[in-house]
Amino acid sequence: MMNHPLTVGAMMEHAEKFFPKKEVISQSHDKIHRLTYKEIGKRTRRLMSALHNLGIRKGDRVGTLAWNTHRHLEIYFAAPGMGAVLHTINIRLSPEHIIYIINHAEDKIIFVDEDILPLVDKLQDHLKTVKTYIVMTDKDKLPDNSLSNVYSYEQLLEKGDEDYEFIKNIDETDPAGMCYTSATTGKPKGVLYSHRGIALHSLALGLADTAAISEADISMPVVPQFHVNAWGMPFACTWFGSTQVMPGPRFTPERLARFIEEYKVTVTAGVPTIWLGLLKELEEKEYDLSSLRGILCGGSAAPIGMIRTFEEKYNIPFFHAYGATETTPLATYSRLKSYQKDLTLDEKALEKTRQGILVPGLEMKVVGEEGEIPWDNNTMGELLLRGPWIADSYYNDERSESAFIDGWFYTGDVVTVDEEGTIKIVDRTSDLIKSGGEWISSVELENVLMAHEAVFEASVVAIPDEKWQERPIACVVLHDKFVGKVQKQELLAFLEPQFAKFWLPDDILFVEEIPKSSVGKFLKRELRKYVLEHYQAQEK
Amino acid sequence: MMNHPLTVGAMMEHAEKFFPKKEVISQSHDKIHRLTYKEIGKRTRRLMSALHNLGIRKGDRVGTLAWNTHRHLEIYFAAPGMGAVLHTINIRLSPEHIIYIINHAEDKIIFVDEDILPLVDKLQDHLKTVKTYIVMTDKDKLPDNSLSNVYSYEQLLEKGDEDYEFIKNIDETDPAGMCYTSATTGKPKGVLYSHRGIALHSLALGLADTAAISEADISMPVVPQFHVNAWGMPFACTWFGSTQVMPGPRFTPERLARFIEEYKVTVTAGVPTIWLGLLKELEEKEYDLSSLRGILCGGSAAPIGMIRTFEEKYNIPFFHAYGATETTPLATYSRLKSYQKDLTLDEKALEKTRQGILVPGLEMKVVGEEGEIPWDNNTMGELLLRGPWIADSYYNDERSESAFIDGWFYTGDVVTVDEEGTIKIVDRTSDLIKSGGEWISSVELENVLMAHEAVFEASVVAIPDEKWQERPIACVVLHDKFVGKVQKQELLAFLEPQFAKFWLPDDILFVEEIPKSSVGKFLKRELRKYVLEHYQAQEK
Repeated sequence: MMNHPLTVGAMMEHAEKFFPKKEVISQSHDKIHRLTYKEIGKRTRRLMSALHNLGIRKGDRVGTLAWNTHRHLEIYFAAPGMGAVLHTINIRLSPEHIIYIINHAEDKIIFVDEDILPLVDKLQDHLKTVKTYIVMTDKDKLPDNSLSNVYSYEQLLEKGDEDYEFIKNIDETDPAGMCYTSATTGKPKGVLYSHRGIALHSLALGLADTAAISEADISMPVVPQFHVNAWGMPFACTWFGSTQVMPGPRFTPERLARFIEEYKVTVTAGVPTIWLGLLKELEEKEYDLSSLRGILCGGSAAPIGMIRTFEEKYNIPFFHAYGATETTPLATYSRLKSYQKDLTLDEKALEKTRQGILVPGLEMKVVGEEGEIPWDNNTMGELLLRGPWIADSYYNDERSESAFIDGWFYTGDVVTVDEEGTIKIVDRTSDLIKSGGEWISSVELENVLMAHEAVFEASVVAIPDEKWQERPIACVVLHDKFVGKVQKQELLAFLEPQFAKFWLPDDILFVEEIPKSSVGKFLKRELRKYVLEHYQAQEK
Repeated sequence: MMNHPLTVGAMMEHAEKFFPKKEVISQSHDKIHRLTYKEIGKRTRRLMSALHNLGIRKGDRVGTLAWNTHRHLEIYFAAPGMGAVLHTINIRLSPEHIIYIINHAEDKIIFVDEDILPLVDKLQDHLKTVKTYIVMTDKDKLPDNSLSNVYSYEQLLEKGDEDYEFIKNIDETDPAGMCYTSATTGKPKGVLYSHRGIALHSLALGLADTAAISEADISMPVVPQFHVNAWGMPFACTWFGSTQVMPGPRFTPERLARFIEEYKVTVTAGVPTIWLGLLKELEEKEYDLSSLRGILCGGSAAPIGMIRTFEEKYNIPFFHAYGATETTPLATYSRLKSYQKDLTLDEKALEKTRQGILVPGLEMKVVGEEGEIPWDNNTMGELLLRGPWIADSYYNDERSESAFIDGWFYTGDVVTVDEEGTIKIVDRTSDLIKSGGEWISSVELENVLMAHEAVFEASVVAIPDEKWQERPIACVVLHDKFVGKVQKQELLAFLEPQFAKFWLPDDILFVEEIPKSSVGKFLKRELRKYVLEHYQAQEK
């Protein structure tokens, strides 16, 4: 067979040639843009030539601080398309961490969305390697700033060459992108994505049994483009010719619902918090979401009540997936097997809360204290992954050796596996609660709590205990109308029949919100601190 | 990203782990076998250990002369799974060619189906490298033969090790399989398939916009496993956990129709001749084929009448695909784009006769006498392909240099391309007719002839002409009930409004059958000989 590399540039070329009429619909700060792949392709080529003229060369890192828009999509292809490395920066990180990762990645150039410009303006003196800034704006004049060497995106494009060629002379294992993941402690850790990894991951997203991304789709990735390549959706959707709807800066649940209705979105993807917000919106106002063939959910476990509401009340299929920054991210995908179609609604809903089976192309192993665990739907173990779109290290980071061992990535996620090979995330290795020598899964408790009609969100953490080593405490946010009306005893009684007695939380604290990370995950170490302080204050 | 190879063995491991309950239903000579992937996996491992014990090592060629059965499927995974090379041999080739390719490939071992045993028995003295024969039979006792070193498949398996491991220490570009393609002149030419090529090709078959092979499918590849890996279906179906139905030795249209009905087959694949046969069967007897979500057709152009009958009368979606032995084979796949759904039935049917757009992962170029042709649905050019599942040479064959030039495979197929990028095969470079300096496509004439209700098959060839250089002659097989009732004039009148005058055949000869190759394609050089002899006989 030919020694022909898989490259990101070839994916855009495919869209230009075979889907020239299909559109990208993009909300920028000022307006809706509608551009065909033919136009997007030309603009991407202009951008590549502009990057080249600005001195960007093979292997250079190109940073972005930007929302989900067509311009960000163009950079997704232009940077790797000319041999550079797309470095998407999480705009929700602390300024300190943003400075750290830009310097650590040695970004040469930074693309910045207009409303993030003030932040970058403040940071510029700390950015040691950045030579150029490009502001993504519709306006003729750049917003006020004190950056040196700053350009307007559209003005650069005007001068670009629309026939600039995608790089072909490239090894498919060369880096195409990178993204930093926040560590539980310490600085964020960088992950490099190869052309090969992104292309194979995109094929995985197109498989009939995973996301099945298709030309016929109208796809709206809500998961940010600064977060693990928006789960790879922009790459796969472009390659396979889907219409893409990009919700733009600071979107609201209202905008999401409206876009789904207006553009007849068929598939969308995001974290549970987004879908909780969408459900609230649907309860308040009527929308026609009948075009949706699927909601993809990942990032953290979706509560069963939410899944059932989408599937049974709104008739929208809901699919759990699982992955991590280190896994590009898609690793498992939940879809009922053909012989599970006869399950009852209750059984189906339970299946839907699981994270699914391994995507073809990867290998997994689940390891407990005594080696590989049995697939009995009960024993817990840490999930290990390997394959061509799994990272083999963190970028220039000595913490690599604790996560990448003997060719496997140790995910830090604790799972059970059933006889179908379906995994269920039960916890983070760091969040498991060890009580009297037995493991308690904080996530299992949370899921059941969140199935109670009064509960909006719940998070369970361990506090130290002299007798039992650790004991679980639950923190609960109630729906507005239940505040003051539902007490601790009622929730404990709700949990009781579903768990062994020693699993039941020692206490339930009602809180106004659960602290969350920049990507919407519960920040358990913050919550643990809060709980401990709460009891210390009581003791005083 | 991890440097993790794509391997054929890992695909079977995936099925063992995630689809252990799914079945392979296989018709052997004596009975129907039903085996789960758990069992198939164990049997494959036993077979690998047996091959190892018989002296087969990495890179050795393992020949098969066999029908579509579960045993053939096991060899598909066992040979590459232990590092050897699966060499499927076309049982319909002449004995002379079979001897040539076994010797040329240097097969060390031959697997043979029981009814092909007499043939191999006769050839054995000519086979220079074969050390061992294995007969695939259900019977306790081997059929009579004079082979030396001959084993029963099942007896070998009994002694095998069901925990034998798939080889992991392998380069993904190492050969996993090989197949010989018949040349227009001279000996067959060998093509090597790499692990990488087969894995990527399988992912392509699973894409929502190509064959969309899924766990929920009940797949019946009718295309022989000795012909380009049954278009890769056995690999993809196993990896993705489809139920597989294998029609076994010497199947008839009746068996195909019965299997589709009985096993609720959802997708099947084969050449047009097969589907013409199935249509005849459907006209004679009633079957419930409502489970079928698609018929995949390739190998040669399907007549529009046949496509319409399947789609409009039987409500079975019909998909044209295109490929070659050198392309693993899937290269293009025909599926209407989302914005083509509003076409009229006539327009849709015309679209359905086209071979579709390029599959993601490949690149194409269409070259005429003046370089790349415009995509105007009119200009003809030769299709060139490149990509990771396209061959880069013929195996140890100096004819490579005329087909593989500057990194492109010259397919020898003449196509037009429309503005959607959809190709239509209009001829072989060798079968185009050049009349008065203009090209005439024999295939276009054939397709329109076959749309006439009286015509069962039609083939058009060139004969030399003093004035015009070449002129087309059509050979037509009539449906039984029209024989003697339809004359030349009627068919010419049918063609007339649809073509320029100089395209019309100078003559139409009614024949009883069109000579076909071992894979069901029209043998035009045979037909040309027949036509020339026919006119020479008339002159006498």
